[in-house]
Amino acid sequence: MKAITITESGGPEVLSWSTVPDPVAGPGEVLIDVVASAVNRADILQRQGLYNPPAGASPYLGLECSGHVAALGEGVSGWEVGQPVCALLSGGGYAEKVAVPAGQVLPVPKGVSVADAAALPEVTATVWSNIFMGGGNATSSNVFMVAGLRPGETLLVHGGSSGIGTMAIQLAKAVGARVAVTAGGKEKLARCAELGADILIDYREQDFVEELRAATDGAGADVILDIMGAKYLTRNVDALAVNGRLAIIGLQGGVKAELNLATLLAKRAAVTATTLRARPLDEKAAIVAAVREHVWPLVEAGRIQPVVHATYPMREAAEAHRVLESSTHVGKLLLTV
Amino acid sequence: MKAITITESGGPEVLSWSTVPDPVAGPGEVLIDVVASAVNRADILQRQGLYNPPAGASPYLGLECSGHVAALGEGVSGWEVGQPVCALLSGGGYAEKVAVPAGQVLPVPKGVSVADAAALPEVTATVWSNIFMGGGNATSSNVFMVAGLRPGETLLVHGGSSGIGTMAIQLAKAVGARVAVTAGGKEKLARCAELGADILIDYREQDFVEELRAATDGAGADVILDIMGAKYLTRNVDALAVNGRLAIIGLQGGVKAELNLATLLAKRAAVTATTLRARPLDEKAAIVAAVREHVWPLVEAGRIQPVVHATYPMREAAEAHRVLESSTHVGKLLLTV
Repeated sequence: MKAITITESGGPEVLSWSTVPDPVAGPGEVLIDVVASAVNRADILQRQGLYNPPAGASPYLGLECSGHVAALGEGVSGWEVGQPVCALLSGGGYAEKVAVPAGQVLPVPKGVSVADAAALPEVTATVWSNIFMGGGNATSSNVFMVAGLRPGETLLVHGGSSGIGTMAIQLAKAVGARVAVTAGGKEKLARCAELGADILIDYREQDFVEELRAATDGAGADVILDIMGAKYLTRNVDALAVNGRLAIIGLQGGVKAELNLATLLAKRAAVTATTLRARPLDEKAAIVAAVREHVWPLVEAGRIQPVVHATYPMREAAEAHRVLESSTHVGKLLLTV
Repeated sequence: MKAITITESGGPEVLSWSTVPDPVAGPGEVLIDVVASAVNRADILQRQGLYNPPAGASPYLGLECSGHVAALGEGVSGWEVGQPVCALLSGGGYAEKVAVPAGQVLPVPKGVSVADAAALPEVTATVWSNIFMGGGNATSSNVFMVAGLRPGETLLVHGGSSGIGTMAIQLAKAVGARVAVTAGGKEKLARCAELGADILIDYREQDFVEELRAATDGAGADVILDIMGAKYLTRNVDALAVNGRLAIIGLQGGVKAELNLATLLAKRAAVTATTLRARPLDEKAAIVAAVREHVWPLVEAGRIQPVVHATYPMREAAEAHRVLESSTHVGKLLLTV
């Protein structure tokens, strides 16, 4: 088959559409003929040599895909050859075929094209597992300490126009929460508003702590979904409400920062940091099952849509990486075979 | 009535056994004739002028008490005058009488003397709300993001010989967890072992991160109950297992420290900080109800005991404060009227 390989760590130019051996469906796995994959920020880090795939994962880029079931490994039931599916991957989506544990496969939701379904697995699994599981919603004892956003609470989403951000806005609105977003510039914020965001903060010109306080009678955010890490830690804790929960899923603004524990204690607040890719199979399967149970019906009812900025032929993955790195997009960038 | 008052902020000598107006049971409150109160570290801070009582709380020291119901305020049912009780207070325990919201009152458990029952409310409510609620055990949607310790998991308790520590050891063992403790010196560690602690770490001579790793095949602690705050933050995060949860309930080692978010993210771990005293009434009532449901049966079955180091006449509260400040005690220090 063909797959995007990395000639050596570096810029987008190191991505090469190459001939590689076909994967096979091992025991418990589903082999998928890929129709589309999507670009995630982790792909950039992996291309740069800064984020090695976990043990046992495909060496190729791509944390999600859509396509058709090509073969079932030993012991797999519940899926049929030819069925349109999408999947959460540990790698290998930038290819014509990929093998994935059956617990990470989802049906293509009704009303969504097979290609667009590639925009869903990573963002829905990330948002659902970080923001909505826990509290009264925990569906698995393996998924701990997540934010448990409830109707009527306020969620602050950093990077509201990103793939994760556009899904977080829609999901939070669907469950009856109030949504604040940060994004860079009026255009992106306008798109966030179209998706349902209530409080729009331009991080280039406004202080999000102040803006959020002003918009919440001083209360702050019950839950914050953060991708900046160190750069925002102090301000995120300042922006939390009493009983607030800061869920960090990215470290784009660095790794180490001072934490004021007195502020955290006075607010009885929590800081969590998670990543999806490194989770063991049982946790991923529990998350994917929860997404299918809770999120898929909202997608099929048209209340939540994949937000696709643009679609590129997979062999032009380098161009999609350039766009992601320029941060001029809103939503997801797809790669089609 | 008589109560311990503070002539001016300072050392133990500022505590004075004075005549003050009697409290009355307001609507929803229970008036208690106090038999005993207990000394908490927060009392020291309040005596020093570093920890003001929350709005509406008694100005006197004392976060817990035991005694007999003296009167019921408007709308209170479920309690009878003369009944032996103990209670979680926002203040006012160092006195002959105290009024407390009915949701914070507990019966004296069978098999425990009325005086010794004063050793239970603060430690059981703190330990239960921080370590055991959450996960599958959440009994109230108001109590978030707590550690959800499960059977088979490893709990690390800092200050294992303290009032909180001695209760945490017993409760964690009762639910089938493995318990590691830090304490200063062989004598205190021996007492922790008697209470059930499996892994004994002398913080004066050993590094708890290394010792814990060695005792858990490198896995670390699933839950850490911490009273040191800043001083231990980095090492606590290092000592956490994957999916680990650090619950900070004291800041004896300072307030600000650097947090490595990459370590937290790689472990998919969480840091929470809470305090009991500042919680609103409904949260306190939910915690007290959970303690009555889950902890009281263990006490009545003799599986958990109040650990009382010594009992002092309340007028000699200064001496009890000196002992607490010297950290030579194991368990709780009681004050009796």
